[in-house]
Amino acid sequence: MKQEIRLGIIGLGQRGWGLYTGVLQHLEHIRVTAVCDLYEDRMDRMVEAVKENRGYEPDRVADYHELLAREDVDTVMIAASWAMHTQMACDAMKAGKAVACEVGGAGSLDDCWQLIHTYEQTGTPIMMLENCCYGRNELMILNMVRQGLFGEVVHCRGGYCHDLRDEVGYGREIRHYRLDNYLHRNCENYPTHEIGPIANVLNINRGNRFVSLYSMASKACGLNEFLRREKGDEYDLTNAKFAQGDMVTTLIKCAGGETIQINLETTTPRAYSRQFEVHGTKATYLEDNQSVYLDTPENKAADFNWKAKWGNIEELREQYEHPIWKKYIEEGVYDGPAGHDGIDWLVLNAFFDCYAEGKPMPIDVYDMATWMAITPLSENSIATGNTVYFPDFTGGKWVTRKPLEL
Amino acid sequence: MKQEIRLGIIGLGQRGWGLYTGVLQHLEHIRVTAVCDLYEDRMDRMVEAVKENRGYEPDRVADYHELLAREDVDTVMIAASWAMHTQMACDAMKAGKAVACEVGGAGSLDDCWQLIHTYEQTGTPIMMLENCCYGRNELMILNMVRQGLFGEVVHCRGGYCHDLRDEVGYGREIRHYRLDNYLHRNCENYPTHEIGPIANVLNINRGNRFVSLYSMASKACGLNEFLRREKGDEYDLTNAKFAQGDMVTTLIKCAGGETIQINLETTTPRAYSRQFEVHGTKATYLEDNQSVYLDTPENKAADFNWKAKWGNIEELREQYEHPIWKKYIEEGVYDGPAGHDGIDWLVLNAFFDCYAEGKPMPIDVYDMATWMAITPLSENSIATGNTVYFPDFTGGKWVTRKPLEL
Repeated sequence: MKQEIRLGIIGLGQRGWGLYTGVLQHLEHIRVTAVCDLYEDRMDRMVEAVKENRGYEPDRVADYHELLAREDVDTVMIAASWAMHTQMACDAMKAGKAVACEVGGAGSLDDCWQLIHTYEQTGTPIMMLENCCYGRNELMILNMVRQGLFGEVVHCRGGYCHDLRDEVGYGREIRHYRLDNYLHRNCENYPTHEIGPIANVLNINRGNRFVSLYSMASKACGLNEFLRREKGDEYDLTNAKFAQGDMVTTLIKCAGGETIQINLETTTPRAYSRQFEVHGTKATYLEDNQSVYLDTPENKAADFNWKAKWGNIEELREQYEHPIWKKYIEEGVYDGPAGHDGIDWLVLNAFFDCYAEGKPMPIDVYDMATWMAITPLSENSIATGNTVYFPDFTGGKWVTRKPLEL
Repeated sequence: MKQEIRLGIIGLGQRGWGLYTGVLQHLEHIRVTAVCDLYEDRMDRMVEAVKENRGYEPDRVADYHELLAREDVDTVMIAASWAMHTQMACDAMKAGKAVACEVGGAGSLDDCWQLIHTYEQTGTPIMMLENCCYGRNELMILNMVRQGLFGEVVHCRGGYCHDLRDEVGYGREIRHYRLDNYLHRNCENYPTHEIGPIANVLNINRGNRFVSLYSMASKACGLNEFLRREKGDEYDLTNAKFAQGDMVTTLIKCAGGETIQINLETTTPRAYSRQFEVHGTKATYLEDNQSVYLDTPENKAADFNWKAKWGNIEELREQYEHPIWKKYIEEGVYDGPAGHDGIDWLVLNAFFDCYAEGKPMPIDVYDMATWMAITPLSENSIATGNTVYFPDFTGGKWVTRKPLEL
């Protein structure tokens, strides 16, 4: 068995609970020593679960500072509301507790700089738990890009297309912070699922960087229509003015000349998609029909009848499956209870393994700050109609940092 | 038989030839009285074809002004190079010849204003031959939008995603003007296939209008890689610096609060797609997997397994097929030799029928100017990084003009 790592969990809502039940409860070497939430019932549920699964009770802590001060905590996992991530992560780094931080956008660029400065001052390991970087298709396409099959990549696309009208609209009932964000802010509020895998493909902060950004938001009417149907016309939120546009489209220009497009689409009815796309001089991948177009005469002949090739990524699976997924499947975990199709499993284990082995985190503080910065930058751009400039959070180090070994 | 309409054709290259062989040669009531091109061999080919199919020889005219001066020409079809469209169309309107003009982008906003002013001064009918407005799926989705199935539309997407590396790269051999455009210009150079169907969905110039636009272009390397492979390193164009980015993404904001995204992607390997999408408060359509997501519990349950529903547009075909396509199929033309999946047939017949019946053109001069304006506006935005403002070519009439009966 691996050496024991003692973990404190901050934030026991939907996400903290999911990561525990989907992954942590199955990791023998992880001992949850303390749990923290503002709500008693969430702490009750978690303590009960650990007791039942593992036979011991973690301590309950109402104030996260107390959790960070404990000697029996080596690492912390932050799954609290978006607005608390930066402060909690910085406090944890200062306390010398390695941080696994859930995803979200920043409130302001200063949040991002705080993460950078605190990390550079303390040296405490921190990783953003961007599980979509471990998506099976995302990693396979990355593998193909690394092997040169896409030639020179010129454009990538991603999206967080997820019908969350219930989670937002019922925000009061389920105590979810999305509601207040949607009432007040208009931005790309959840950029990391879509940008993470793209940043890996384009070696962002490792020989390339995001230079400029532009965002445009549509009107907001999806939530009103949903609440009218679900709650009726008398319900106060039914006629509330939501600030958050139903569709936010963001364009990013990279130092290498590549362009990126990401969409946030969470308040209209549609099927889930991260709409990952990679467009290169030798191949194109579209998630929305899971096809890889390689530059062959056979594919050119199918130009107008591409429908027949939808899903052809499966034909390439055996040859190009990413080593991370090969190993994962070989080890038999895939058929187990891993959450979110295995991506939670892979991202959390990456954190614990890098921590244990003293290796650099695969999604480090520079990635975290850069990806989270998209939120305030998009807010600025939407409000002003301006192209906005990306800070270089690496302080110039991006020109010499080496591509991630992923 | 319908009353005879006498047609002059200007531009007998790939497109003029295709429209003749695909559609015109089958229209008994259309008499091609004169044809015009800069190249003798193209005129030879066309005259021979008309002679063989119809038993008479149209006159050959080297100068299009001569063609416009002829008494035996009622209507003209312009299928010349992009750069000539405006001048030819304006000269034709001045000569009182109803104009069917092929698609393309404008060189400058002044081109668009010239079209408007000439039309308003002469009253000569003019229609842009935007065949994609007659696409079977585009019209069916429009039909569903008109019936309210999409609720309030908040976002649309389109694209001209067509691997034209051969057409551009071999531009010298095939005498195609795309080559010189790609060497010198960087813009959304072919906006109408993608924006036409969207403009119909959003009632542009008819209660709504495009207000602002932003474009971003990627680097250009697709053509160089293609030419290196096809022609070798010694070929002069292989190492040419192409101005045209491989991917141009354009965002448009509408007066009604809707957003639009269009892509131009013609110099990298990929399957053809117009990537038409409509996102509303009650439904979403994605061309890239030809699925319609209606806001039902069954579809919500399939959220993460939407793959099973790809292509489900076929299930809605019988109920929502657009009347234009129903008629087209009932008349048996569909199984005939109509070009481009019938869309050329439909667009040309719409022009001739409106002309004969004195009805307003379904794609009129205001649509034409507005759609063509995307090209210079995108050029400006790419060059400056600015959001640019859309002229109102209707002179304020858009606030009272009624939606198209389509």
